[in-house]
Amino acid sequence: MNKKPLILVTNDDGITAPGIRHLISIMKTLGEVVVVAPDRPQSGMGHAITISDNLYCDPVTIDKYSEIKEYSCSGTPADCVKIGTQEILDRQPDLLVSGINHGSNASVNVIYSGTMSAAVEAGIEGIPAIGFSLLDYSMKADFKPTTKFVKRITQQVLEHGLPEGCVLNVNFPVAESSEIKGVKVCRQAKAHWQEQFDKRSNPQGRDYYWLSGEFINNDKGENTDIQALEQNYVSVVPVQFDLTAHRAMETLNNWKLND
Amino acid sequence: MNKKPLILVTNDDGITAPGIRHLISIMKTLGEVVVVAPDRPQSGMGHAITISDNLYCDPVTIDKYSEIKEYSCSGTPADCVKIGTQEILDRQPDLLVSGINHGSNASVNVIYSGTMSAAVEAGIEGIPAIGFSLLDYSMKADFKPTTKFVKRITQQVLEHGLPEGCVLNVNFPVAESSEIKGVKVCRQAKAHWQEQFDKRSNPQGRDYYWLSGEFINNDKGENTDIQALEQNYVSVVPVQFDLTAHRAMETLNNWKLND
Repeated sequence: MNKKPLILVTNDDGITAPGIRHLISIMKTLGEVVVVAPDRPQSGMGHAITISDNLYCDPVTIDKYSEIKEYSCSGTPADCVKIGTQEILDRQPDLLVSGINHGSNASVNVIYSGTMSAAVEAGIEGIPAIGFSLLDYSMKADFKPTTKFVKRITQQVLEHGLPEGCVLNVNFPVAESSEIKGVKVCRQAKAHWQEQFDKRSNPQGRDYYWLSGEFINNDKGENTDIQALEQNYVSVVPVQFDLTAHRAMETLNNWKLND
Repeated sequence: MNKKPLILVTNDDGITAPGIRHLISIMKTLGEVVVVAPDRPQSGMGHAITISDNLYCDPVTIDKYSEIKEYSCSGTPADCVKIGTQEILDRQPDLLVSGINHGSNASVNVIYSGTMSAAVEAGIEGIPAIGFSLLDYSMKADFKPTTKFVKRITQQVLEHGLPEGCVLNVNFPVAESSEIKGVKVCRQAKAHWQEQFDKRSNPQGRDYYWLSGEFINNDKGENTDIQALEQNYVSVVPVQFDLTAHRAMETLNNWKLND
């Protein structure tokens, strides 16, 4: 098949975010690109889907010199994948890429990540998928150093497909191209957020809170994504969507769950 | 320790939903109960958290004859767990229970589930946690047949704790007590939703969509949650939050990811 691969692009920072614009510019060199992305930032949306409200999904022109078809969607990243594959595209895409996220989706952040929920949604539908994230939350983040790695990882996925039941969670350190040591296949570091709630009063005197927190990595083991990123490697974690803790099943079978 | 266990209760259908009221009535018999639940339905919210908006979390009285402390929160189920453990409770709870959800969280629904995101959030924080769901979406669902099973499963978790790195996803068939055959420890069935988008025009002539779909179970293997539920068993799936597809790592290490 000489046909160019069909690549669906989405993100969770919104269709105009610099990260997705950079990702589109790379994907253009690898295949036929269609963009279906949220009309506004959707960070921290996890795997939310829109079931109690309607969805808008309209063609838009972000770059008037581009011939790529782009659609702006009122829903979440997972909604974008669902509507993209079912309503917008006339055939199943060969690849879904999501990002490049402004900020980390390494370790436990994968659970809260809208970027990765899009990749997982595609994975469930049987589409190879990659979520890309740069550890820089700024809208002025420099995505250039990611280019050759995004391209190489994407080419490998287009060439090999992905092992069944997983998608890729790729994170980039904040570093110059020359400082990045390479790509490491990793496991998700065992970490958590230590929440802090900033309590304030609104002008009417009602208390409210802002969620903030500190990322705590208790995982001192080898081969974690956090460790790789700290050492200026690009981390690649295969992420599964069968959440069954198979090893725990035996333990539970020894419990008195029945009379 | 003779002290009663401290049990945090939440859900995703909102604090007044019949399912959580039933769950509270059972938990009262097992420990000291505190409720922190969304002020409105949050179904399909996945593991969303509120990071770009403030959160309200106010004490409320739903049942004036009850002495249980209850808080109504403007956020998602995961937010409720975060604010409950960090701001409301003065010690770490011994257990988090979420539900009883009006509708299935079996199989791949676990990924979209607000009910289960609360349980996973607690699990990440090191708190044993269970999400309960009944396969009846109606607000008039009959939760009585679940009572003895909810109690027994909860007692087993309080007694044994949970294997590290997992929480429980418990689903109930729609059946009379006498018809329920028992409890089965299961794996997550490999299934997906085949989306259908219902396209309409709003009064101004702009197109919009309603997401709907059909649940497709292609998993003909043994020991799935869907199979157990079809046979009128209560399904218990241990759910992990290390999403690493460990077996895929070797495959990826054979790729040309570096020069």
